[in-house]
Amino acid sequence: MPSIKDVADLAGVGVGTVSRVINNNVTVKPKTREKVLSAIRQLNYIPNEVARNFKMQKSTMVALLLPSIWHPFFSELAYYIEDELDREGFKLMLCNSGGKPEKELYYIDMLNQNKVAGIIGISYNDIDDSVSTDIPIISIDRHFAKKITCVTSDNFTGGRIALRELVKAGSKKPAFLGTVTSVYSETMLRKEGFIAEAESLGIDYILYEESDPVPDEEKYFENFFKTKAHQDVDGIFAITDMFAARYIKTAKQYGFRTPEDVKVIGYDGIQNNTLFHPILSTIRQPVEEMGRMSVKLLFRKMEGETLEYETYRLPVEYRAGETT
Amino acid sequence: MPSIKDVADLAGVGVGTVSRVINNNVTVKPKTREKVLSAIRQLNYIPNEVARNFKMQKSTMVALLLPSIWHPFFSELAYYIEDELDREGFKLMLCNSGGKPEKELYYIDMLNQNKVAGIIGISYNDIDDSVSTDIPIISIDRHFAKKITCVTSDNFTGGRIALRELVKAGSKKPAFLGTVTSVYSETMLRKEGFIAEAESLGIDYILYEESDPVPDEEKYFENFFKTKAHQDVDGIFAITDMFAARYIKTAKQYGFRTPEDVKVIGYDGIQNNTLFHPILSTIRQPVEEMGRMSVKLLFRKMEGETLEYETYRLPVEYRAGETT
Repeated sequence: MPSIKDVADLAGVGVGTVSRVINNNVTVKPKTREKVLSAIRQLNYIPNEVARNFKMQKSTMVALLLPSIWHPFFSELAYYIEDELDREGFKLMLCNSGGKPEKELYYIDMLNQNKVAGIIGISYNDIDDSVSTDIPIISIDRHFAKKITCVTSDNFTGGRIALRELVKAGSKKPAFLGTVTSVYSETMLRKEGFIAEAESLGIDYILYEESDPVPDEEKYFENFFKTKAHQDVDGIFAITDMFAARYIKTAKQYGFRTPEDVKVIGYDGIQNNTLFHPILSTIRQPVEEMGRMSVKLLFRKMEGETLEYETYRLPVEYRAGETT
Repeated sequence: MPSIKDVADLAGVGVGTVSRVINNNVTVKPKTREKVLSAIRQLNYIPNEVARNFKMQKSTMVALLLPSIWHPFFSELAYYIEDELDREGFKLMLCNSGGKPEKELYYIDMLNQNKVAGIIGISYNDIDDSVSTDIPIISIDRHFAKKITCVTSDNFTGGRIALRELVKAGSKKPAFLGTVTSVYSETMLRKEGFIAEAESLGIDYILYEESDPVPDEEKYFENFFKTKAHQDVDGIFAITDMFAARYIKTAKQYGFRTPEDVKVIGYDGIQNNTLFHPILSTIRQPVEEMGRMSVKLLFRKMEGETLEYETYRLPVEYRAGETT
């Protein structure tokens, strides 16, 4: 079968011009157009998909990039994103990109080729060079340097509330337990809020962080418990619920009971039932709202709108459990 | 622009014949072929995507239909399915179809139009009329009447093991707690295995079931506990882990402690850490193997192979927790 290149050669034009004719692009001069159509007829050329889709295809597919769907926070988020996309007849393509920047780049490439209409992503990889402003990408939690719209929870206020609730529960020496990521993420504001509130209340506090990803979590907690200055810590704000749960388990081995000896507050609100214990006291993220808003903002970006904010921070709430 | 229908009318053939000519299908007679090509030239017809894709497009998209990605068993399954698809350069399209048969039918339609290359699905809807043998669909747990290949765990043996472990833990009067679905599912074999093992050991047992979906779970358990014949039940095999956890919580309210008064075994193995309690004793499904095998079998079906089995049952194992 003849190729688009054959048509272009016979008509004496470029391949792009042939594509534009096939796609009825009005910018082609009538005379050029006739030359191309004549070449198409002469060669009995049948346009292939690539030519047809050139600048024309409207994909109804949105890619969701997550570190892992197997995490309860992400699967809840994916649930609501799919539901919201479905309302508009869009489909969700799912990618577990955890630790694989090349997988994320692959999807960004698909976006550039119009094979997906947009991307919603939680990226922990450094892919700044591959994205540009105004392409339909919504980021969750993480900031790209190039001003990709970000949907997140109000991490700073979450940190403030956590400190306040620890103090309210009787903690005199609260500590923040976290990890430091190499890329800037809104989640870092959890610590900032914790510090700000402690300082405004004049409370003594501890910060304990290691680089993310933590290669050996047992070691992480061992290091924490072995430090002398940490012996009288009686309150913990952990950067995630999973981290809080791991702290509680390890603390028990070191003889610290929760909540009798140490009050613990997590962040996320991954427990959606009261069947498994401990039920964590936590800063609950508005997961449904975050998912639905990400989709709505993505649609607006797909239509070329300029959004009001660079970062959309949704309100969090404190949910008391059994650990404070 | 002229349509494929115009070409068919002018050539005096059906639309399907025009499609076959466009796709170079060898079954079209040379004379008919020439008539169609002549009509295409005369009308300056440019085949659209639908025509081109007719029997020709090779999509690299596989749809995964799940009741809800927000369930830990399904999110683990989706994780491995995506990972296995990715190895072959395929993408995962995710659909939460829970309780919405029309959503499942929509994806089956996409498959028929070659917009997706295959479907892996857990369906609880009655969609038998819409599927046929030999189309690339792999079902998980559920059987379609029309012999769609099914990947599942060895539910029958799982039921046998559960009964045996309850007895080993000291239970004299074990009960099976389940639900009855209107469509036939492999999961029903959990009960059958339980019964078979109880009878072979000569153990007295109780079966307790209500129709699925259970509208009011509190009521379900209330009915169970209020029945006089259930007062001396000292072992529970629940059809899923979530069901086991709900039983344990309700039992406590009725004064039955686990495992002191009642031993409890679930099915699934949804807990992937030891941070939350109770850690259920359970029949662990080989989720990773089920996910990867579903993809491998789907690929074979996509290539037109006839598979050796109608149902692939993968071995389960007993995982002791804190509830026996």
